[in-house]
Amino acid sequence: MQAQPITVAYGDGIGPEIMQATLDIILAAGAQLDIDTIEIGEAVYLRGNTAGIDPSAWDSLRRTKVFLKAPITTPQGGGFKSLNVTTRKMLGLYANIRPCVSYSPYVHTKHPVMDVVIIRENEEDLYAGIEHQQTPEVVQCLKLISRPGCEKIVRYAFEYARQYGRKKVTCFTKDNIMKQTDGLFHRVFDEVGAEYPELEKEHWIVDIGAAKLADTPEIFDVIVMPNLYGDILSDVAAQIAGSVGLAGSANIGEEVAMFEAIHGSAPRRAGQNLANPSGLLLGAVMMLVHIGQGDVAEKVHNAWLKTLEDGVHTYDIFEAGVSTEKAGTREFAQA
Amino acid sequence: MQAQPITVAYGDGIGPEIMQATLDIILAAGAQLDIDTIEIGEAVYLRGNTAGIDPSAWDSLRRTKVFLKAPITTPQGGGFKSLNVTTRKMLGLYANIRPCVSYSPYVHTKHPVMDVVIIRENEEDLYAGIEHQQTPEVVQCLKLISRPGCEKIVRYAFEYARQYGRKKVTCFTKDNIMKQTDGLFHRVFDEVGAEYPELEKEHWIVDIGAAKLADTPEIFDVIVMPNLYGDILSDVAAQIAGSVGLAGSANIGEEVAMFEAIHGSAPRRAGQNLANPSGLLLGAVMMLVHIGQGDVAEKVHNAWLKTLEDGVHTYDIFEAGVSTEKAGTREFAQA
Ligand SMILES: CC(C)[C@H](C(=O)O)[C@@H](O)C(=O)O
Ligand SMILES: CC(C)[C@H](C(=O)O)[C@@H](O)C(=O)O
Repeated sequence: MQAQPITVAYGDGIGPEIMQATLDIILAAGAQLDIDTIEIGEAVYLRGNTAGIDPSAWDSLRRTKVFLKAPITTPQGGGFKSLNVTTRKMLGLYANIRPCVSYSPYVHTKHPVMDVVIIRENEEDLYAGIEHQQTPEVVQCLKLISRPGCEKIVRYAFEYARQYGRKKVTCFTKDNIMKQTDGLFHRVFDEVGAEYPELEKEHWIVDIGAAKLADTPEIFDVIVMPNLYGDILSDVAAQIAGSVGLAGSANIGEEVAMFEAIHGSAPRRAGQNLANPSGLLLGAVMMLVHIGQGDVAEKVHNAWLKTLEDGVHTYDIFEAGVSTEKAGTREFAQA
Repeated sequence: MQAQPITVAYGDGIGPEIMQATLDIILAAGAQLDIDTIEIGEAVYLRGNTAGIDPSAWDSLRRTKVFLKAPITTPQGGGFKSLNVTTRKMLGLYANIRPCVSYSPYVHTKHPVMDVVIIRENEEDLYAGIEHQQTPEVVQCLKLISRPGCEKIVRYAFEYARQYGRKKVTCFTKDNIMKQTDGLFHRVFDEVGAEYPELEKEHWIVDIGAAKLADTPEIFDVIVMPNLYGDILSDVAAQIAGSVGLAGSANIGEEVAMFEAIHGSAPRRAGQNLANPSGLLLGAVMMLVHIGQGDVAEKVHNAWLKTLEDGVHTYDIFEAGVSTEKAGTREFAQA
């Protein structure tokens, strides 16, 4: 197997610890990787680069086309941009895939039979970053939705469902109020969906859809939605499945793909050997599938499940935390 | 006691049934009301009035200043406006109050100790209704936030917490992305909050805040937030507390106040004596407190709780539904 070039960023806070653990695990499991490390986040911001990433880093990303990214810290105030948002935009990462799965009884959850994949549009909506002061007392932010943007994400969702043998694709919008913007998203969902006769299709207004998701997630399968709803509801879904700390995510573009945990850099927990690498590890598993090393992905995923089953948990899952990620790392490496 | 003039609309779908039940109950409990009935909703829309309300109805509302409103149906397509949104805007109903309370063990919930009040800004944000087509392929909606708007709703939330002996007020925004719009809301929260030293204050980014609300609602007390987040998260909170069908809501303006259920008109269930009047009834209880008939409000609320405790449930709460709202109505009337 040819080693796959990938770009890795260790990030801030707990980032370096969980990235090291993740790389140790996947390399021990046989991943063939040619790793290029870049620096992003706090250190770069504090050098005065408001984007949190140096221009040379983009070269690495455009060359390897695969990015494994640890969480970073954005300094407060002072016009710093969100590196997540910058990266998604610069690399055209239009689809954000967030599987939210219960691992009951190994991870405590009130929703033991949950297996939802949230597919979030990742470039448009209120994230377009067009915000301005209209009068001294009035500020505005533009919510922008385009037909090509809707087509790309909706088609991605249906293709994903087909590829992974899913049964149903649900769409959430608020098109009873935003008839043009969310209305376009809903209309494109209906149009594109017509090309997938084997899949069940449904649409919910986002308020009651969110309520059902939070209460009875087992009725959902794949859900596709505009950016901001996806941001909020993927956190909801991940948390009620067990913990936002357990969810990985893929950010997919035409050329480049980025893989990460959905949680943040938790600076207060850094360096204490307390952090749970699961979110990033599951992001790395998605990466291994993406680069055609699916056998390694499966090995890592099974070893991870086995570790959960054996009751090895970091403090965030069971407060009594019998172990930390270091134990996890060693066990995984043995697998 | 002087009879209080109020305006009543019976609405569409299950509206007339639940309004009749609600009025029967509160009048039997001693509410002193001078009722003016107006017509809104489907019939008005279908007469060609895209707002769903006749001009004369506004006169009634401006005179009585108190509106008890059943859910209505907005016909699909054709440029009909949401009457809810029109009413909120025309009457300046800037605060939407949605208590989300568990009635465990009488109503099934996974969150038995929940008692959250969501205070939703009700006029601004993406609900300002400014939407347009920019190019054939791009549509936009304006999110609008004003300082006076933020000040009114945030102050309302703190005053509410003080008046009802609440301990903590939480604010949800996405100001790491929308630094100007949501940033203003957050800033005003901090400013106004400083005037309430006896109350605990906290702020969450809406994604992780929503996740915590869906997973551990017992850590929240009063939560104040911009319009759209409040729309989505009040449905989430009401549903996980038991059912959106059980939540009432108050829409408060400087002059007029409107009271309603948070659920819709459920046209498919109309006329079958299946509907649960609880949402509207709890809206009516809030109305009775608002018009100074708090003793009647308490009587109705206690009778309603008693009915739940006695195991009288409509089909939406327990599928086995031992009774319908008619039984409920008669029992309440006896109380
Ligand atoms: C950190 C923030 C910019 C980001 C987002 O809002 O997209 C995060 O919440 C996420 O969901 O990846
Ligand atoms: C019907 C709709 C316009 C309304 C809203 O979005 O505000 C409803 O969902 C609500 O929460 O009262």
